[in-house]
Amino acid sequence: MNAPQLVERVRGGDRRALARAITLVENGAEELRPIMAGLAPHTGRAHVVGFTGSPGVGKSTTTNAVVRAARAQGRSVAVLAVDPSSPFTGGALLGDRVRMQEHSADPEVYIRSMANRGHLGGLSWATPHALRVLDAAGFDVILVETVGVGQSEVDIASQADTTVVLSAPGMGDAVQAAKAGVLEVGDVFAINKADRDGAKSTLRELRQMIAMKDRTDQEWKPPIVMTVASRDEGVGELWERVEQHFAHLEASGELTERRRARARGEVEAIVLELLRARLGGVGADGGLDTLAREVAAGDRDPYTAADLLLKELGADPIP
Amino acid sequence: MNAPQLVERVRGGDRRALARAITLVENGAEELRPIMAGLAPHTGRAHVVGFTGSPGVGKSTTTNAVVRAARAQGRSVAVLAVDPSSPFTGGALLGDRVRMQEHSADPEVYIRSMANRGHLGGLSWATPHALRVLDAAGFDVILVETVGVGQSEVDIASQADTTVVLSAPGMGDAVQAAKAGVLEVGDVFAINKADRDGAKSTLRELRQMIAMKDRTDQEWKPPIVMTVASRDEGVGELWERVEQHFAHLEASGELTERRRARARGEVEAIVLELLRARLGGVGADGGLDTLAREVAAGDRDPYTAADLLLKELGADPIP
Repeated sequence: MNAPQLVERVRGGDRRALARAITLVENGAEELRPIMAGLAPHTGRAHVVGFTGSPGVGKSTTTNAVVRAARAQGRSVAVLAVDPSSPFTGGALLGDRVRMQEHSADPEVYIRSMANRGHLGGLSWATPHALRVLDAAGFDVILVETVGVGQSEVDIASQADTTVVLSAPGMGDAVQAAKAGVLEVGDVFAINKADRDGAKSTLRELRQMIAMKDRTDQEWKPPIVMTVASRDEGVGELWERVEQHFAHLEASGELTERRRARARGEVEAIVLELLRARLGGVGADGGLDTLAREVAAGDRDPYTAADLLLKELGADPIP
Repeated sequence: MNAPQLVERVRGGDRRALARAITLVENGAEELRPIMAGLAPHTGRAHVVGFTGSPGVGKSTTTNAVVRAARAQGRSVAVLAVDPSSPFTGGALLGDRVRMQEHSADPEVYIRSMANRGHLGGLSWATPHALRVLDAAGFDVILVETVGVGQSEVDIASQADTTVVLSAPGMGDAVQAAKAGVLEVGDVFAINKADRDGAKSTLRELRQMIAMKDRTDQEWKPPIVMTVASRDEGVGELWERVEQHFAHLEASGELTERRRARARGEVEAIVLELLRARLGGVGADGGLDTLAREVAAGDRDPYTAADLLLKELGADPIP
C-alpha cells in the first residue's frame, strides 16, 4: 500500500489503514511525510477533547462513559490513548483499555493506544500526527487520554480543542493538579468518584482555585461536574459541558486561534526534529559525541559546544 | 556583580550568589552564557541523586530525611526542588518545603526551589544548568526532586547519577510507576509509609516488575528499601544503597558514560533552544505564524511548512 493509497483508505475510515498510519506515526517512519501531506487538506472537522488527571481518578472509566454519551447523540468517536512506552511492560498495561471492548462491535467507534517513545518534547508531533489521521478519517469527536500527570498532561491541552481535567475526592488531587500546572489549562472540570467521602470539600477547593484566575465576562468560566463514571452518573452533563465549550470556541473565534497555535507547535516540532536528527551526524571534529565528552570533562562549556554544532549544521550564526 | 564575580562567589559557596545564579537559570537570562562557561571547569565533583515518584508518596519528607542521613556522614548537601510553575499558585505551594527549615541553620545545607517554566523539553537545560551551579559551589551531594509524575519524572533520571524511585502502599503505585516509565530508570527503590497496610504486597509487586528486566551479572540490581521517612526509619539504609550505587558507577566506568550522556543532552537542548528562538523571527513570507495559519486551514501540510522554515533559517537542506 503506497502513500496515496493509504491516504485514500484512511479517508474512507478503513480500520486497517488507520492502524497502519498510526503505527507509522509511533515509529516516526520516513513515509509519514507524503501521508501527512495527503491528509492535510481533509482535516479540521473533528472536535478534539483531551482528558487529563492524576493516576487513579478514573480516566479510562470516564473516557469510556463519555464515548457512550457521545454515541447516544449519534457522533462517531475515536479514542487515542497515549502511553509512554516502557521496556518493562510493553503494551501489557494497556489491559485497562480492555473495558473499552464494550464498543468494539460499534463501527462508529475506534480505539487506539499509541506509544509515545519520548520524542523530544514528548507529545510534540506524534500526537498531532495521530490526530490528523483520525480527523481525516472523518470522526466527529476524538478523545485523547494520556497516562500520568506532569508535563505531558499539560502538553495535551495544547493539542485539544477542549481539555477536561479530572480529579477525585481524598487524593489531594486539587492541590496536586495545581502543582502540575493543569488547573490553568482545564476548560471543563470533573470530580469523579463523587459518591466518596470528601467530594464536597474537593469541589470547594477546586472552585476556589479556579476562581483565583481573573476572567473577563466574555471569557469561558470552566464548569465543575460531579461524576460517578463507573455508574454513568453525571457523564451526560459532562458531555453537555464539553459541547457547550466547543460552541463557545466556535462563536468566539477562539477555535481558530487554538488550532493555529496547535499547527504552529506541530511545525516547530518537525523543524526541531529534523535539525535534531542531524546533530548526531555532523562531522567528526565538531560531532556531538566528541563535544559532549569535552563538556562532561569540564574542558569545554556547553554554550561554546552549541555554537560549534550550529556552525557544523550550516545554520546562520546566532545574532 | 558581573559574570566573573558571580562565578567566583558561586565557587566560594556564597548564598546570595547561588540564589542569583539559579534565578538567572529560571529566567533563561542572556547572562547565562558567560556564567556557565566560567563554572564549567569546576564541575564534576558532586554526586547527583534524583528523587521521583507519584504525588503523595512522601517525596519531600524522604528528601528531608535523606539530607539528615547525608549530613550525619559529614557530606554537604544541596537540594534542588523543581516545580512546574503555575499562574494559579505561584510559589505558594512550595509551602511543603517549609519543613526543610530544619536545616536552615546548617551552613552545609542549601535548599532551593526552582520553577521550570515549560521550556521545550521541560527540564532539558534548566536543570543541568542549576546542577552546574550547585556542583561548582562544592556541594558533595545534590538531591533533585520534581513535582508530579510523567515525562518530567523520567527525564530527571537523565540528569542524575543515581535515581531513587519512591512508592507507597495502596496507591497502585507500582503499576502507575510502570505506566509512567519510571521503573526502568530506578537505580534504588524505596517503599515509603512501609508501616501501612499493603506494604508487603507492594514490595512483592515491585520486585516482580524489577525482575522482568534482563540484567547481566555485572549490571547493578536495583535494591528495594522499606522506609517510614516521617520517623526516619530505613532512611539510613536507603542512603547506604544510594552510596553503593555511586561506588558501582565509579568502579564500572558507567559514571563517565552517564555524565557524557547528560552533557550531550544539555548541549543538544541549547542548540535547539537557540534555533527555536529564531523560528518565530524569520522573514514575513515564510514566518512561522503565517505558515501555522496555512497549516491550520489545511492549505499547507506541516512538512512543507517545516521545509520552508528551515530554508529561512539558512540551515543546509535536509539530505
